[in-house]
Amino acid sequence: MTDTVIASHSREVAIGFNRPFVIIGERINPTGRKVLAEEMKAGNYDRVIADALSQVEAGAHMLDVNAGIPLADEPAMLAEAVKLVQSVTDVPLSIDSSIVAALESGLAVYRGKALVNSVTGEEDRLETVLPLVARHGAAVVAISNDETGISEDPDVRFEVARKIIERAQDHGIPSSDVVVDPLVMPIGAINAAGRQVMHLAGRLRSELKVNTTCGASNVSFGLPNRNGINSAFLTMAIGAGMTSAITNPLHEEVMQAILGADVMMGHDSDCMRWIAKYREPGASGAARGNRRERPRRRRG
Amino acid sequence: MTDTVIASHSREVAIGFNRPFVIIGERINPTGRKVLAEEMKAGNYDRVIADALSQVEAGAHMLDVNAGIPLADEPAMLAEAVKLVQSVTDVPLSIDSSIVAALESGLAVYRGKALVNSVTGEEDRLETVLPLVARHGAAVVAISNDETGISEDPDVRFEVARKIIERAQDHGIPSSDVVVDPLVMPIGAINAAGRQVMHLAGRLRSELKVNTTCGASNVSFGLPNRNGINSAFLTMAIGAGMTSAITNPLHEEVMQAILGADVMMGHDSDCMRWIAKYREPGASGAARGNRRERPRRRRG
Repeated sequence: MTDTVIASHSREVAIGFNRPFVIIGERINPTGRKVLAEEMKAGNYDRVIADALSQVEAGAHMLDVNAGIPLADEPAMLAEAVKLVQSVTDVPLSIDSSIVAALESGLAVYRGKALVNSVTGEEDRLETVLPLVARHGAAVVAISNDETGISEDPDVRFEVARKIIERAQDHGIPSSDVVVDPLVMPIGAINAAGRQVMHLAGRLRSELKVNTTCGASNVSFGLPNRNGINSAFLTMAIGAGMTSAITNPLHEEVMQAILGADVMMGHDSDCMRWIAKYREPGASGAARGNRRERPRRRRG
Repeated sequence: MTDTVIASHSREVAIGFNRPFVIIGERINPTGRKVLAEEMKAGNYDRVIADALSQVEAGAHMLDVNAGIPLADEPAMLAEAVKLVQSVTDVPLSIDSSIVAALESGLAVYRGKALVNSVTGEEDRLETVLPLVARHGAAVVAISNDETGISEDPDVRFEVARKIIERAQDHGIPSSDVVVDPLVMPIGAINAAGRQVMHLAGRLRSELKVNTTCGASNVSFGLPNRNGINSAFLTMAIGAGMTSAITNPLHEEVMQAILGADVMMGHDSDCMRWIAKYREPGASGAARGNRRERPRRRRG
């Protein structure tokens, strides 16, 4: 029953075992987005603001903000992006960088309790990122790789996660403020990748009692119809106990999979969110569109 | 590692723990299909044949055949339907009736090893259907309700399933020839229905070591966008260990969910089926359409 609470100055979001799945919008990230990168480098954040608004409109509960552009002043740009995004929306943010100084400057301007994305099990990361997280009273994404890289053995990744959680505790960060990313491999390369993540999501939840997240689109790398694979992955991961994902809420198919999974988990009370979203136009009752249907006959 | 083998005169299908999910086409069923019922009553089976061909074309591995029309000669009609369907396709059939005489006449003309749909835990059904199944060397769908109705308590449904499996063994039917339907409740009425089925699919597999099936569309009764809910349900059920379903393969969205779930379970070797189905036109390599994409950056 672990809740990880992330907050802006005026809104809280809880990632938790018995709650609707939390969608962290991934779009504000110049990696692989050449136009966005050029604009940000030129001091033009219009697209950042548009991406913030469109993702929230599409149903993102939180937004990831990344300003990782090679040879740019990432600390200054991340701080600027965080400030601007917080000026147009009050959803809580995940502050995303591989550079500690950038995390630091993002946290310095952030209003609320941020999610820091991320720390790994590498010694130097643990000893630079965790003190920062502790000092700001933030939560942190723990990525389950270390100096030896990303193990293909999920049990090794589990032990890396355990190490990060223990180290966080040494720094005064409760395990409820550590959200583990068990690392999703491309299923086109490693056919067991899906079962590995389900197995890990279950163990992380039942044994370490932590919340989990993932970069959901990695799983479909190299395959056609990626949204179809991403949808299947997220649905199964939620069934196995995953509690949040960094993904693209603008993909309607993926959002439907997540909303449907929330229904299946019993986390959409009386299916109210599902009905509100998919009710046929003009229907006033919950089941208006299907009133004339009957369940398939069962012998009894 | 239980396999349930169903066969026509020339083709076998195995429902099994480590195999692709088996789709049993549900369309040949006059329940709620007024035109089909009228035509069948008038001796016109053109639509039955068309439904058989279209479902196989859409990817059904087996077909359910039901001729349940009130006040009609169901035994004669079911036998006729079974014969005609077997004359146009060699996928194995599920012979579906609540009338024992109809099951008997369907089995009498069936060529191969059929799946009998179904027996319940009711005493009179056990003692009439199971001897028939045993005599024909068939397999059987065991629906987990009994004289007391359908329990809302999944553990009661589990015990009914156990009773049917034991009774089948008394009649010489191995548990590998019993496919349990744990009964899916409409999630709009019972919000825990999804978790119940996942829990049951897991227990039936790990404790009783039997294959499972379900009428997949019951879960979405009364809700809008039923295919969206059915897709989420099937994906999660497969993740939890469900091995087959009686569903409509003409719903592209549902078929995509099943194929995606097979990929996630590692049951689509090298994602070959997925790639064959969704490869962009003109692409020759597996990942041609995505060649220029890179995985999302991960810190390491």
